[in-house]
Amino acid sequence: MKIKNIVTIGGGTGTFTVLSGLKTFPLNLSAIVSMSDDGGSTGMLRDQYGVLPPGDIRRALVALSESSETLRDLFNYRFEEGGLHGYNFGNLFLAALEKVTGDFTSAIREASNLLSINGEVVPVTLDDVRLYAKLIDGKILRGETRIDIPRTANRPKIETVWLEPTARINPSVRRVLHVADLIIIGPGDLYTSIIPNLLVKGMPEVIRDSKAKKVYIGNIMTKQGETDDFKAEDFVTEVEKYLGQGILDYALFNKKRPKPSTLARYRKKGAHFIDAGTINLKSKKPKYLKADLLDPGPFIRHSPKKLAEAILALFSQK
Amino acid sequence: MKIKNIVTIGGGTGTFTVLSGLKTFPLNLSAIVSMSDDGGSTGMLRDQYGVLPPGDIRRALVALSESSETLRDLFNYRFEEGGLHGYNFGNLFLAALEKVTGDFTSAIREASNLLSINGEVVPVTLDDVRLYAKLIDGKILRGETRIDIPRTANRPKIETVWLEPTARINPSVRRVLHVADLIIIGPGDLYTSIIPNLLVKGMPEVIRDSKAKKVYIGNIMTKQGETDDFKAEDFVTEVEKYLGQGILDYALFNKKRPKPSTLARYRKKGAHFIDAGTINLKSKKPKYLKADLLDPGPFIRHSPKKLAEAILALFSQK
Repeated sequence: MKIKNIVTIGGGTGTFTVLSGLKTFPLNLSAIVSMSDDGGSTGMLRDQYGVLPPGDIRRALVALSESSETLRDLFNYRFEEGGLHGYNFGNLFLAALEKVTGDFTSAIREASNLLSINGEVVPVTLDDVRLYAKLIDGKILRGETRIDIPRTANRPKIETVWLEPTARINPSVRRVLHVADLIIIGPGDLYTSIIPNLLVKGMPEVIRDSKAKKVYIGNIMTKQGETDDFKAEDFVTEVEKYLGQGILDYALFNKKRPKPSTLARYRKKGAHFIDAGTINLKSKKPKYLKADLLDPGPFIRHSPKKLAEAILALFSQK
Repeated sequence: MKIKNIVTIGGGTGTFTVLSGLKTFPLNLSAIVSMSDDGGSTGMLRDQYGVLPPGDIRRALVALSESSETLRDLFNYRFEEGGLHGYNFGNLFLAALEKVTGDFTSAIREASNLLSINGEVVPVTLDDVRLYAKLIDGKILRGETRIDIPRTANRPKIETVWLEPTARINPSVRRVLHVADLIIIGPGDLYTSIIPNLLVKGMPEVIRDSKAKKVYIGNIMTKQGETDDFKAEDFVTEVEKYLGQGILDYALFNKKRPKPSTLARYRKKGAHFIDAGTINLKSKKPKYLKADLLDPGPFIRHSPKKLAEAILALFSQK
């Protein structure tokens, strides 16, 4: 049987989880990663050295790495004191490599060799862009960090997001999407990890024109200031607003409710369970699918293993 | 023919030059490296993170690396601006690896794998030590940096140097010296790169007891504040003061005088040519050898190729 080409689209820990689960199977994996991060160590490096944002690329590289655990730990290591306080080592690594090689693509290639990557990590764009959001009260926020970390609990909803300047699609994105058998969008922060990929000029069309099945994987919890009160279908509606309607084949959600004590802990941070019970199961495009995707650990997140199994089951879906 | 085990003892650029020249030949190479550096990026990392000094280890690793030029460039890359100003990337790498693995030896092992090292790099000690010097006027200097970079041109001569606290020998040093066919001491800064190795408790005895031939390779130029007015034999005398007499089999010096215009340039920095013509050729132990070892480039330094050839010729010396 031909080995399947699976492409993930996202950024952050959601992409890490999907890739971690899928990499134990014989698959050709490519990760398309958003490029609008400007927080923390990534933001410091962008501001000071004019490099492209390394953070999400690093997480995807570590997820696909078959190198030693030590090397993967090193890439996630963060200096906690002294002059390097707050710098993540893997981000430093990619930034220094970009300086040495002269371009981000070569830096990723070198890092991929070094980390023995099984797959490919592809920045959605190679342009130096920032994410903007307009709230429903008309206020405009510049930068992913300001959008990601709301200053107040009752921030008005996000009306629309965009990138400045216009982001051109990385040619490698066309290449990997062209041969994809399955395109996975999500899980991850809706406005700051997922949609920024769809804001790149040409991305919706390239995804639409791919012969691959397309699935959106929903989050388990809402996020304060971003997706308060969102129901499962609201996530899909927002993704389709930027991707176009009738493009997603499936929308996959977790149906397993976390323990009440765990939910109470998350409620304090303004995060609520997204109840897949409210889903309209008659929708044909996308077809809604529900499965137990919950990680058994103390944190509310997708289980890499359950997620991978649910994803692979899509190949048997009609 | 059995492949020869060659061990270099030193630190800094001298060791880099010897290893770079030798690594093109089929040899088992080990580099014993001094551990008293406390300047620049190495000093910042020692002070802030309590790690062992990575700088000289990094140079030896890069010299023995068979990985891509990009990766070697990366390890030598220095951030020239921003919050990371002055930090060398390879030093950061070793410091972060020491933090992640919990010890310096594991960090070197991981870095060696990563850089595809052909050979072995061995810190002379794993103790956290500082170099001290007493000048002939009785003044005591603490730290390699203060000894290395004299504040005044007419600093009194160095009377003696020592390490604090007492440095215990790294067990791997015994292992590599035990099987050595040739031990190369130098070239390099006499008091700050070469002798600090001999100050480690037990080192002179382990070198003496090795069945290997032992050669000291002299510098081409004197160094202001360290070896002003030194003749070739003065270097040997100082090395023997710490190593013991009658241990060195050979002392190898460059005989080729650099161009007058180049010498004039170095004279401004207080560095003078060490004229091998003054050498007492009747000495039996060590036997003095002279060869054209000068690099043809614009800097006065050993040619890695000429040096390697002169070293390999020692195996045919009686």
